[in-house]
Parts: sequence; structure tokens; C-alpha cells
Amino acid sequence: MIYTELYENIRRKGSFLCVGLDTDPAKIPACVRERHGDASMLAFNKAVIDATAAYAVAYKPNIAFYEAEGVSGWQQLAETVRYIRSTYPDIFIIADAKRGDIGNTADRYARAFFETMDFDAVTLAPYMGSDSIRPFLKREGRWGIVLAMTSNKSAEEFETLTVCSASGHSHPDTASMPLYERIIRDTVSSVDSEFGDSRSRLMFVVGATRPEKLAEIRRYCPDHFFLVPGVGAQGGSLEEVARHGLNSHCGLLVNSSRGIIYASSGEDFAEAAGAAAADLAAQMRALL
Amino acid sequence: MIYTELYENIRRKGSFLCVGLDTDPAKIPACVRERHGDASMLAFNKAVIDATAAYAVAYKPNIAFYEAEGVSGWQQLAETVRYIRSTYPDIFIIADAKRGDIGNTADRYARAFFETMDFDAVTLAPYMGSDSIRPFLKREGRWGIVLAMTSNKSAEEFETLTVCSASGHSHPDTASMPLYERIIRDTVSSVDSEFGDSRSRLMFVVGATRPEKLAEIRRYCPDHFFLVPGVGAQGGSLEEVARHGLNSHCGLLVNSSRGIIYASSGEDFAEAAGAAAADLAAQMRALL
Repeated sequence: MIYTELYENIRRKGSFLCVGLDTDPAKIPACVRERHGDASMLAFNKAVIDATAAYAVAYKPNIAFYEAEGVSGWQQLAETVRYIRSTYPDIFIIADAKRGDIGNTADRYARAFFETMDFDAVTLAPYMGSDSIRPFLKREGRWGIVLAMTSNKSAEEFETLTVCSASGHSHPDTASMPLYERIIRDTVSSVDSEFGDSRSRLMFVVGATRPEKLAEIRRYCPDHFFLVPGVGAQGGSLEEVARHGLNSHCGLLVNSSRGIIYASSGEDFAEAAGAAAADLAAQMRALL
Repeated sequence: MIYTELYENIRRKGSFLCVGLDTDPAKIPACVRERHGDASMLAFNKAVIDATAAYAVAYKPNIAFYEAEGVSGWQQLAETVRYIRSTYPDIFIIADAKRGDIGNTADRYARAFFETMDFDAVTLAPYMGSDSIRPFLKREGRWGIVLAMTSNKSAEEFETLTVCSASGHSHPDTASMPLYERIIRDTVSSVDSEFGDSRSRLMFVVGATRPEKLAEIRRYCPDHFFLVPGVGAQGGSLEEVARHGLNSHCGLLVNSSRGIIYASSGEDFAEAAGAAAADLAAQMRALL
């Protein structure tokens, strides 16, 4: 889907909630595991999806949780995506894979997520440059979501380092800037050059830890969607994130995982997930 | 395995060759596809491995190629690893996954590659800092191979940017340096602090494009193994790489993929792979 459709779904639902399906088999309630055995991840996901789809515009499985379970995990991931597609066709599905490889290899990853499975978007690591981003942007309606400023503890080891222009390169903005700013500016620039309009192919992962930094980023990146990995526990509040990060077409997808999917570890896990999602969506509606 | 064992294998075989199992189903010879159908990737891999194991100390499947084929690809990847482990137990097996996520998620990836499958090492993207590296280094004998300086065209967009110390951080070496140098120095330093000796847990991906840069990197990173993604077609020659990059315990794993696995597209593909590997190994023996 293109960004105007995503925005339309956000407006219609009054929500910019993304539910993170970081499904850990060890945390699935006993009642599900007893009943579904090796297909527990899928059963759990379906129940959570059914309970929350009215409040969410996106789902984001983190691929690591499925890879950890080998072939069975991969199978359940594929079936989760198929379930969402067939039951809730207006949902935006993100593969939180943080893939980063180049050329032919990146094409293989794009095939894995956009053809072999039917995701709308894949999160990407930018370290190796545009060679690792471009292959994911070739398909109309499919997106790359590039890591920019994350909110983990060690994010400041490299992401916020001040960088200067590489020797021999002329840069329109030759002032030094944080690495993440360089990544955002250069990526928007190169994707715009190649595809004409990057707003429907490119998002950035921007953490909620420092909401004032969100405002700063908005000054040079006003139009693109940001995927915000979490609010509250990880730093900035939803209200602060919205205040600094919303643009004329929302421009935010705010993720919540544990707070929703593990809201209860009992038989009422799906109901509790629904209530948690409804609560966040209500707050979002007020902010939109 | 620890680095002294890896070095012992290199010495015994007279080779530091790593064979890249970047297996594309569309490039598998017809005779294999006709006979093995959906299990062609595995059959192809086994034949290549049997023909080349005498000349290689490592194999490196790029995970993208297997993910692109979904559940079947993942299954064939797992069986390829099992085959190498059971038939050639002294081989070092690298998951070229370039994974990069943090905390619990990184733990899941480590589980996927070190428990669910039995790899020795995983390539890693360093962007999010040590939170994304450390979880892979916890297991004795298992390695993280961190992207540092790669040889692709867009590597110069970010990797070679000059970085300065982040404000508020005191850095022993406050001179500005390329990002990749900062990553290497900081990663060695933090892994040494945490584990005492990083030489048996940590390698770096260093491209062959600019061999004089290899010499430069060796000055501040003398002891760690470098995984060199390719020689010849991608820039520096094997002889230049060896001249600038070898250390007292070899310290290099040089990868070749297409030149070996696609040396022939006919029925003699395995024989041709063996000949290509033997040729590289002979050059390496002379250089060691």
C-alpha cells in the first residue's frame, strides 16, 4: 500500500498502533500450549490478532522469535502473515528483520519477505549504504524501514557520533551532524533520485527515548513515516511522541509488543491484549 | 572452536579458504534439479562440500538464499549444517546472516544459529552498538563476526565517514577516525572488558578492495581474524590480502563463492568446484 492508503487506514481506525508479535513460545499461556503443541505460536498470534485488529493499523512480527524455533517457527510466521492478509486485508504487515546485505543477496531477502511471504515492509540496517536499501524498494507498494535512531542503551556508541563529509565528496550540507542524521538525509536523497518519491517506499526507525530529538528530525525529515519501537517503558510518552512527531498525514506507527501480547499470561490473554490495544488506540485517537 | 584450533586446522590443511554456499536454486545444474526436486539446494551443497572439504577450513551459507525459499529453504539450510558437522567435524561453519538486533531479540537470533542450528559463527551488523553484538558472544567457542569495512560500492557512504567522539564521552583516542575504525576499536575494547579475551569470540568483516587499508587496520587490530568476503573480482588480489592481512596465527578467512560453486553449470559442477578450491588452496599454502 502507498502512504496515502496507510494514512487513510489510520484516520478510519483513529489509531496509529502497530502490534509487535514478538512471540516467545515460553511465554505462551499454558492453555494454548496444551491445546496446540507445536502450532502454539500461530494459535497465540491468531487469538491476539483477532482481539486487537480493530485497534491496530499494523502488525510487526520480529523475525528472530520465529527463526529461533527453526523450520516450525518459519512455518508459523508464514501462516501468521497469511492469516492477517486473508482476514484483515487493510493491515500493514512489517517484517522486523533488520536485514542488511547487498546486491543479489539483498534481492534474495526482498524475495523472502515480499514474494515467498507477503509482508508490506522490512526493517533494514543501513551500515553498508544504499546497496543494502535499494533492492527492497523496487516493488510498488512495498517498503524499506531503515534503522536511524534507536532507543537502546548502546545506541549512543555509534548512531549519535558526529560525522563529517567523506573526503572527496561534496555534500550539500557540509556541517557535521550525527551519523543517524546523515543516514536519514542521504537515504531520502538517494531514494528520491532513484524513485521520484520516497514517501511511499521508505520509513525510518526512530526511537521514543528523546522526544525532542524527534522534533529535530522532523525539521529535516518532515514527510516520512517513522516506526517508533515503543513508548513509556522505553522513554518518551505517547503524548510527547505524538506532539513532536506527527505530521500532516500522521507519519507515525507506534509499536507496542509486551504491553499488549503479554498483558495477561492466563486464559484471558487475548481479551487482555484487546483491552490494552483499545486503551492505546483511544489515546491515539485523541492525539490525531 | 577457539582461535588456536582454527589456526591449527588452517596449518594442517595449508589453507584459509572459506567456501560461500550462496546457493541459488535457479543456478543449480539441471541434472541435480531433475533428480532432487525440492531438495536440490541440499543435494547441490553436499556435492560441493564433498568435492571441496579437503581444501576449505570453513563454509559460509548466506542465509538470504535459504530464506528466499521459505520453509523448504530453511530446512535445507539446517540439513546442510548437519551434514557438514557429521561428515567434516573440523570445519568452521559461518551463518552469513548480518543480523543486528538487541537484548532479548538478539538472544533469539543467537539461539536460532547456535542452538536450533549448529553454526560456529554469525555475521553481525554493528549499527545499534554493543547491545547487538554481546548476546552472540556468550557461548564458549561461538563467534560474532562484525561488519567493519566492506567492499561494496556504497560502503563509502557511511563506513568511511570521519567520526569524532560523541559529546560527553572521553575516548582514549580522541583523534577523529573512519567509522569502521571506531567500530573495530570500540568492539574489541568492550568485548575484551567483558570476556577477557576477544580473540576467540570476535572477528571482523574486512573487504579486499583496498589492501593497503588492511595493513592500516592490522596496526590497531593485530590479533583478530578477518573474514574477507572475496578476492580478485572485488578488488585486491589474494597475494595482496595475504601480504597485508596475515598475522602470527594466519588471522584470515578468505571467502570464495561463485568462483567455486558455479565454476561449472554442467554435470561436472562438483568436480569443477573441487578444482577451483584446490587451486585457491594451493595459492594459500604458498602464502602461509
